[in-house]
Amino acid sequence: MSAARIHLFDTTLRDGAQTTGVDFSLDDKRSVAAMLDKLGIDYVEGGYPGANPLDTAFFAQKPTTQAKFAAFGMTKRAGRSAANDPGIAALLEAKADAIVFVAKAWDYHVHVALEIPLEDNLIGIAESVEAARAAGREVMLDCEHFFDGYKANPDYALSCARTAYEAGARWVVLCDTNGGTLPDEIGTIVAEVTKTIPGDHLGIHAHDDCGCAVANSLAAVEAGARQIQGTLNGLGERCGNANLVTLIGALKLKERYRERFAIGVGEAQLGELTHVSRALDEMLNRAPNRHAPFVGASAFTTKAGIHASAVLKDPRTYEHVPPEATGNLRKVLISDQGGKSNLVAELERIGVTLGRDDPRLGRVLDEVKEKEAQGYAFEGADASFFLLAKRIIGELPAYFEIERFTANVERRHNALGELVTFSEAIVKVKVGEEVLISVAESALGPVNALDLALRKDLGRYQSLIEGLRLVDYKVRVFQGGTDAVTRVLIESADETGARWTTVGVSANIIDASFQALVDSITYKLMREGATA
Amino acid sequence: MSAARIHLFDTTLRDGAQTTGVDFSLDDKRSVAAMLDKLGIDYVEGGYPGANPLDTAFFAQKPTTQAKFAAFGMTKRAGRSAANDPGIAALLEAKADAIVFVAKAWDYHVHVALEIPLEDNLIGIAESVEAARAAGREVMLDCEHFFDGYKANPDYALSCARTAYEAGARWVVLCDTNGGTLPDEIGTIVAEVTKTIPGDHLGIHAHDDCGCAVANSLAAVEAGARQIQGTLNGLGERCGNANLVTLIGALKLKERYRERFAIGVGEAQLGELTHVSRALDEMLNRAPNRHAPFVGASAFTTKAGIHASAVLKDPRTYEHVPPEATGNLRKVLISDQGGKSNLVAELERIGVTLGRDDPRLGRVLDEVKEKEAQGYAFEGADASFFLLAKRIIGELPAYFEIERFTANVERRHNALGELVTFSEAIVKVKVGEEVLISVAESALGPVNALDLALRKDLGRYQSLIEGLRLVDYKVRVFQGGTDAVTRVLIESADETGARWTTVGVSANIIDASFQALVDSITYKLMREGATA
Repeated sequence: MSAARIHLFDTTLRDGAQTTGVDFSLDDKRSVAAMLDKLGIDYVEGGYPGANPLDTAFFAQKPTTQAKFAAFGMTKRAGRSAANDPGIAALLEAKADAIVFVAKAWDYHVHVALEIPLEDNLIGIAESVEAARAAGREVMLDCEHFFDGYKANPDYALSCARTAYEAGARWVVLCDTNGGTLPDEIGTIVAEVTKTIPGDHLGIHAHDDCGCAVANSLAAVEAGARQIQGTLNGLGERCGNANLVTLIGALKLKERYRERFAIGVGEAQLGELTHVSRALDEMLNRAPNRHAPFVGASAFTTKAGIHASAVLKDPRTYEHVPPEATGNLRKVLISDQGGKSNLVAELERIGVTLGRDDPRLGRVLDEVKEKEAQGYAFEGADASFFLLAKRIIGELPAYFEIERFTANVERRHNALGELVTFSEAIVKVKVGEEVLISVAESALGPVNALDLALRKDLGRYQSLIEGLRLVDYKVRVFQGGTDAVTRVLIESADETGARWTTVGVSANIIDASFQALVDSITYKLMREGATA
Repeated sequence: MSAARIHLFDTTLRDGAQTTGVDFSLDDKRSVAAMLDKLGIDYVEGGYPGANPLDTAFFAQKPTTQAKFAAFGMTKRAGRSAANDPGIAALLEAKADAIVFVAKAWDYHVHVALEIPLEDNLIGIAESVEAARAAGREVMLDCEHFFDGYKANPDYALSCARTAYEAGARWVVLCDTNGGTLPDEIGTIVAEVTKTIPGDHLGIHAHDDCGCAVANSLAAVEAGARQIQGTLNGLGERCGNANLVTLIGALKLKERYRERFAIGVGEAQLGELTHVSRALDEMLNRAPNRHAPFVGASAFTTKAGIHASAVLKDPRTYEHVPPEATGNLRKVLISDQGGKSNLVAELERIGVTLGRDDPRLGRVLDEVKEKEAQGYAFEGADASFFLLAKRIIGELPAYFEIERFTANVERRHNALGELVTFSEAIVKVKVGEEVLISVAESALGPVNALDLALRKDLGRYQSLIEGLRLVDYKVRVFQGGTDAVTRVLIESADETGARWTTVGVSANIIDASFQALVDSITYKLMREGATA
């Protein structure tokens, strides 16, 4: 029996953007789309072009090469034709492979929210799907509140789905919009729907309001649906959407699924899953969930006790899947061979080749463990990780040395009686035998002033760092043991468009920031092939 | 048809204590037990008396009045009688109503971990259960790895369960110890087991390694099991145990369960669920999960967009259960697109009553929009939003005024040649006619030094802010129009356990931080009812 292909549809950039506290920039959106593309996701939904300038700009060009790029929008408004609907026009202008229309499938909503006759809603579905089909796009219909709608009025909910399918929609997606449906109901209802629409045209869109979004998605697939919608790390409004990271782990690693279902994520891509999950959190300045299935830092951690010795005897005694399959680590066994093979793969990924038997590998591992114990997180800071490895293997030139720095901030009334703030910094560096001292002021604060002073005069390296600029700065304070520790992540870019992230950790936010600044400059000098 | 009684068994203090980073003190254990007792939980498992002095001390007296207090331990060791087993002696000495034995139910584990004949394991189960029964205790058997065991050798797994049942165990608990089993398998296997052991003697103990612990527990109940084991907020080793908070929400509020199943948690107790969930996090100094089903701060939050207006028309349009049932709140996020009805509801939530026709409402809305255009985000900063509204409606006292501040950071070599960093800040404030100037130094950097200096002497308000402390500090830099803008969120707490978040925005990170600090102190003074 050949495995049925399950299509993964990611809505991190659309439904996930509804998460409280999450704001994607245009650059963020591009990075996430590229990451999803590389991971083997089938569809990347980018947003709602026409609804806001950011999404319209994001759809000016296609950010994926393998994955289909999908645009989300409403079906046409009642009382006008699809051709005269500005929302549909905006969707058709977007550089999208697929167009996802959302339409109400619960009669109660058509009455209360739309306040139009039930039939008009069906006409809106049919004409919108046809218009997008005529424009040569793949089309999907998200049936909002499908399950509540089905329970209230199965005939009407089904008509919405069937109308879209008959109008040429490739996929009809059954949405549990308020997240209130439970796995056994999902299974029963999806099975019923497959009698009208073939399962390989059905998708599931689940929310986690009952803590069952993953189980609901799996129940729909068991009942015949062949597309799953979800988000990275379960981002999404309220309790979030179905977590695609968990679903990928389950579909790829659990035998009962692996035998019957296939997804576009290959074994090597699966090995990047932990990295992808944490990189998204770093970008959003969110603390990764340590307890996340498959990818959480604690997902394979055994606290000393009755299980630990059994895990050491044979990991299969307490592990349902091998942690390294998703690029994660077993924590009781971090220093053993499993830890080393992970590290070899991680180093390989950032361009440092070290054999498993190289004695320097153990020293890199020890240093990483020590730094992580202090609060460093290299998951989101490849450039600092690269420098750490290069330093230990003796390939990091000593470009410059910091002698001292000072930074001052002053807020006071100026001569006009206005409250104004000034920042000034002095940095003294040694480049070879040359001692250079620079001062800079900034309206942006002491970190910016330090950055400007540091980059003002690096002697013979100065010309190499002219194109360097800081594009993002993130700070997180957390408990490291008994004391608070500050972790700073700095993202830099240069004239070639290259981007890299560095990390600094200290009790002092300025120290932590300065470390990350120094790493960024050092990384740029390595990129330029500078020698000490 | 009368509803079947489902018994809730909480293992927060035993399995939950295995969570990375969680350490309960004796007082913590007593508080949690009291909280669970009040909530209507049937069994409170307190720990493993005999295994460590803390648990032994906790079992010196019973901490619950309604709930049965349960002690956990291993079955007797092979090669000695139950009467001569020190572990069993410690269990029988504990002031517990119920004794929970754990035994291996997977033949592979009996071979690899115990290294004893399969039959000896059954003898251990029978004799241990009988010994505890003879001592007048209610007895349960946790069948470790039951589902893996059942898949490998169903006869042996069932013999373990049957042996306990026939020896007089009140409950046989089927444990998915590594969390690797999926809902449909759980349903099928539990249904099979009910042919040997009646469902009202069967319990389920699920872990979240596949993100399905809640669904697995529900699947077991649907298949006939009548006891659910779990933890508050899903605490537990690795990815955690089944989240009892979510399960209580689902069993009490979802119609399909409420009709058929009854639990010991009444309506009034359900109304305390949000409080219980957050109180546990407070005790453990963990940030509550905003996205937790039923009880998370964002569980009923709608970000402005296509859903917000429908929620305001009729909450049932987008809410699967009413938030107030668990003591939670509905929240519609303030935003650029937010209209007046959003704002009235939001102000009501934070305790500011303004009628729709009040002219000040428009001024609040304009101010919110202007601030959001500058980069403020009030969705995560209720306290700053409260102050903004109070200021506009003329109810914000002018407690103090900042005259000026300075902050300095210096990194240099000390007399020992070590690189060290110092921060120092001076703040000058005017409280009424009194001018106060304070200085403070900090190892944590200029923001901390400013915070310390600002709170060092606020004159007549000083005694009111003694209990104030900063618990979190977050910084995000983003593009606001053409220039970079820094947004700082500060979370504060006080001696009553109250928490609030304030926001500051500026091109300068120190200014932004200072604004958020000033807002936090002002909010605390308002809470204290201080007058200007």
